[in-house]
Amino acid sequence: MKGKDLAFLKDTLSFWKDLDELQQRTLEESIVIKNFRVGESMRGSSDQCSGLFLIKSGQVRAYIISESGREITLYRLFERDVCIFSASCIMKNIAFEVYVEVEKDTQAYLIPTLVFQNLSKKVLAIQTFANDLMASRFTDVMWIMEQALFSSFDRRLATFLIEQSNIDESDELVITHEKIANHLGTAREVVTRMLKYFQEEGMVNLSRGKIMIVNRDKLQELYS
Amino acid sequence: MKGKDLAFLKDTLSFWKDLDELQQRTLEESIVIKNFRVGESMRGSSDQCSGLFLIKSGQVRAYIISESGREITLYRLFERDVCIFSASCIMKNIAFEVYVEVEKDTQAYLIPTLVFQNLSKKVLAIQTFANDLMASRFTDVMWIMEQALFSSFDRRLATFLIEQSNIDESDELVITHEKIANHLGTAREVVTRMLKYFQEEGMVNLSRGKIMIVNRDKLQELYS
Repeated sequence: MKGKDLAFLKDTLSFWKDLDELQQRTLEESIVIKNFRVGESMRGSSDQCSGLFLIKSGQVRAYIISESGREITLYRLFERDVCIFSASCIMKNIAFEVYVEVEKDTQAYLIPTLVFQNLSKKVLAIQTFANDLMASRFTDVMWIMEQALFSSFDRRLATFLIEQSNIDESDELVITHEKIANHLGTAREVVTRMLKYFQEEGMVNLSRGKIMIVNRDKLQELYS
Repeated sequence: MKGKDLAFLKDTLSFWKDLDELQQRTLEESIVIKNFRVGESMRGSSDQCSGLFLIKSGQVRAYIISESGREITLYRLFERDVCIFSASCIMKNIAFEVYVEVEKDTQAYLIPTLVFQNLSKKVLAIQTFANDLMASRFTDVMWIMEQALFSSFDRRLATFLIEQSNIDESDELVITHEKIANHLGTAREVVTRMLKYFQEEGMVNLSRGKIMIVNRDKLQELYS
C-alpha cells in the first residue's frame, strides 16, 4: 500500500480513525487493489462475497435481473463510493441478488470479507458505517422504485437521457435502445417508440447507436 | 412495565442481553405502551420521529405515496416486528418517506428516539440490530419492486389475494377494489377488470365489498 493509497483510504473510510493501531495495520495489509475492464462483472451470482469494494477510479452499475432476463439499474458507483452488496454475505437478512457490472475501466480497493467481518464485530464505528451505506443504497432504490412505479415513461426516459449526458459530460450519448431498455426495465420497442416521439418533438436526434440531445431545455421540462 | 411486558421485550430485542444493568433500567423506564385504532397513522409526514415501535399485538402496513396520491404497500408488520422507519431521523442517509397505517387495532411498545440514539452510540449490538432490521426491510422492498416491475398483473393480484387470505385466515376477503389498487400501486379499474376475469375463470366470487376465494388451487397456480 503506497502513501497515496493510504491517504485515500483514511480519507474515505469514515471508521479508520476509530480503529486502534493494530486494527489499522491489519486492514492496511489485507486491502488489495483490483482492476476491472469495461463489461466485466464485479459481482455476479458465481462470485457472491469477495468483500467490500471501494472505487478508486472508474464507474460501475448495480442492477437486478428478473426471471425472464429483464434488467433494471438500481444505482451507479463512482470514485470514493463503496459497493456494499459485494459483501452481502456478511449482512444477515439480505436475501436478494444485486449484480454489479463495470461501465468504465475501474480500479477498486478490496477489503476482504473476513477482515471486514472480524473488525465489524469489535468496532461500533464500522457498524455505523455499514448502516449509513445501506441506508443510502436503500434510498437510491426507493427513488428508482418510485420512478418505475409512479412516473410515466416519457419522464423516466428524459430523466435517464439527461443524467446519462451529465455522467458522460456530453450531449452525444453512445448507447443502444436495447441498453436503455435494460436500464429502465422495459422492452426495446417501448424505448424506440418514445425516442422517436422525442425526435419528432425536436428534443433529440437519432442515428445508429447514438442519441444527440438537441433541445436540453425541453427535455429538462420532463425531468422529474 | 409489568413482568410479562418485560419478558416480551427481553425475548424480542436481541440486544437486550448486551446492555449493562444501568442501560437495561434506562430502557425499561423509558419504554411506553401506545394504543392505535384501525385506520390511524403510526407514522405520517407530520409525525416523523417518535422512536422505534415494537408491535405487541395487531397489524400495520408500511407504504409509499406518489405525488399523484397513488400508494403501494411495502410490507406489513405483525406481533414482535419492529417498525424502523418511525425512527428514521436517527438513521443518516435515509431520505425517503414511508407511511405506516394501522390495519388492525394495535398495541406497541415505543422506544423513544433519544433513548435509542444514545444507546446505539455506545452499544455495538444495537447497531447490529438496526443493521439487520434495515437489511430485512430492504429485502422486502426489493421483492415488492421485482413484483411490480417484472411480474404480470394477474400474478401480482393472485399473490395478493392468497397472502391476504392467509393473513386473515379466511377465504372471504372483506376489501374494496380501491384498497387493493392502493396496495398494488395501480388504478381501481385495472383491479376490477382482473377480478372479473378471475371470477369468469371460477377462481373467485365477487360481491359488494367482498371477494370469496372459491378455487384456491387455480389461483395458487398464478402465485409467484
